[in-house]
Amino acid sequence: FPVKTPSEPKIQELNVYEMNEGDRSSPAFLKLSGKETNSIGDLVPFSNKIYHGNLQKRLGITAGICILINHYPNRGDRYEAIYSFYFGDYGHLSVQGTYLTYKDTFLAITGGSGVFEGAYGQVKLNQIIFPMKLFYTFYIKGIKDLPEELLGQPLPPSVNVEASADAKALLAHACIKNYTD
Amino acid sequence: FPVKTPSEPKIQELNVYEMNEGDRSSPAFLKLSGKETNSIGDLVPFSNKIYHGNLQKRLGITAGICILINHYPNRGDRYEAIYSFYFGDYGHLSVQGTYLTYKDTFLAITGGSGVFEGAYGQVKLNQIIFPMKLFYTFYIKGIKDLPEELLGQPLPPSVNVEASADAKALLAHACIKNYTD
Amino acid sequence: FPVKTPSEPKIQELNVYEMNEGDRSSPAFLKLSGKETNSIGDLVPFSNKIYHGNLQKRLGITAGICILINHYPNRGDRYEAIYSFYFGDYGHLSVQGTYLTYKDTFLAITGGSGVFEGAYGQVKLNQIIFPMKLFYTFYIKGIKDLPEELLGQPLPPSVNVEASADAKALLAHACIKNYTD
Repeated sequence: FPVKTPSEPKIQELNVYEMNEGDRSSPAFLKLSGKETNSIGDLVPFSNKIYHGNLQKRLGITAGICILINHYPNRGDRYEAIYSFYFGDYGHLSVQGTYLTYKDTFLAITGGSGVFEGAYGQVKLNQIIFPMKLFYTFYIKGIKDLPEELLGQPLPPSVNVEASADAKALLAHACIKNYTD
Repeated sequence: FPVKTPSEPKIQELNVYEMNEGDRSSPAFLKLSGKETNSIGDLVPFSNKIYHGNLQKRLGITAGICILINHYPNRGDRYEAIYSFYFGDYGHLSVQGTYLTYKDTFLAITGGSGVFEGAYGQVKLNQIIFPMKLFYTFYIKGIKDLPEELLGQPLPPSVNVEASADAKALLAHACIKNYTD
Repeated sequence: FPVKTPSEPKIQELNVYEMNEGDRSSPAFLKLSGKETNSIGDLVPFSNKIYHGNLQKRLGITAGICILINHYPNRGDRYEAIYSFYFGDYGHLSVQGTYLTYKDTFLAITGGSGVFEGAYGQVKLNQIIFPMKLFYTFYIKGIKDLPEELLGQPLPPSVNVEASADAKALLAHACIKNYTD
């Protein structure tokens, strides 16, 4: 009678684009360090739009804060990033980890709500154009099968990708239900 | 010989009230946006009292920060909220998600300590009187059976509920052991 | 045929020292409360170095923020602490909970990346010299076996412990690969 070893938890991939289209007064760069160069003490609350990885649907927003940790001359900045991704009626995912202005990173998924309740795992942050255009791949464990609407092949990240005109215009067929704004 | 499929993890409900009784200098509304209306850039560190859902016992405090994300004219404000609930010797629960001034939300439980070590799931934030009186129902997975003292029927949320006089006066029988303050 | 009850998840212990050696411009004490004594409204972004518990190897840094919650006259301060521990190529652990200037605490492990992907549990913060020298024991669940290089007996915490000269000097044999800085 073979004892079944506990199987690895299922990993679901979710791809989203984060876009700063210049219409959310974000980021708010709070120069609290009192220094000219970016320095620890500076804080950057932010909120951008998020789109489906195929850029055909508006999903919602990101919301959170970047804490400046270090400025590396001739390279860029290190931030500690604590924020969430909002997916309208589907719920949200919270993440924490490093944001570098010059390199991709992995952040921790710290939890979620709605269809993301109980989520854990990590997310890859792929910086396309700092800090305007980012591509994320979530590797999510601990949740039920994601809704069909959130799945599917993403457009490969490139500097030229843009949300579809319909998604930008928030046409009904190009938004998820009660997309977050 | 039937193979038992892995059962759903047990969900434990925990009800608490969060009360701002005006004696903790909280919240500190930091108008860092430099704008007159609430705007991204404003930060709101806060700490309120928490009571058992039946309002007969003082448990501890909340502690954390609300990050202003958006001001919706004629509706209210959206914050990204990152905070913890402290339960004296029992430990704490950390949460992250949206706080809206005009509507209930679900936040993620991101972790915990003590009897809440390993906690995950979500919590419903029921706003009774913004930002003075809130009712929460935690749906907690991943932990052992909660202590009897934290369980039991809550008083239904209403604008008139108050902590019992004994709990406000911190009488020994109306506090948990080493309640957080 | 005995039914095996689900075993407790494995707990792995990880010991690290956090040292403020005065060379990272940290912490940035932002006196945003506008009050002379430490008060809610004050924020403290910080980043220190972390070393292996045996103090023979530099691992990386901490990075995050402490939110002042309460000042207790003649005792000290309570902060809500939200930060991460970075371990070079191995990844990171994020934590949240209370930091007291006068007493040890337990914080929640809220997630991780790399070899810490999927981490949960709690971490003991042992304050040796506020806020310059701290010792942590992580009790981690949910991850594979930790790399040998991170394990092993720690030096017992005491006011006199220091990182080895080689680790401070960042000699190759006294750093993990691509240690975070």
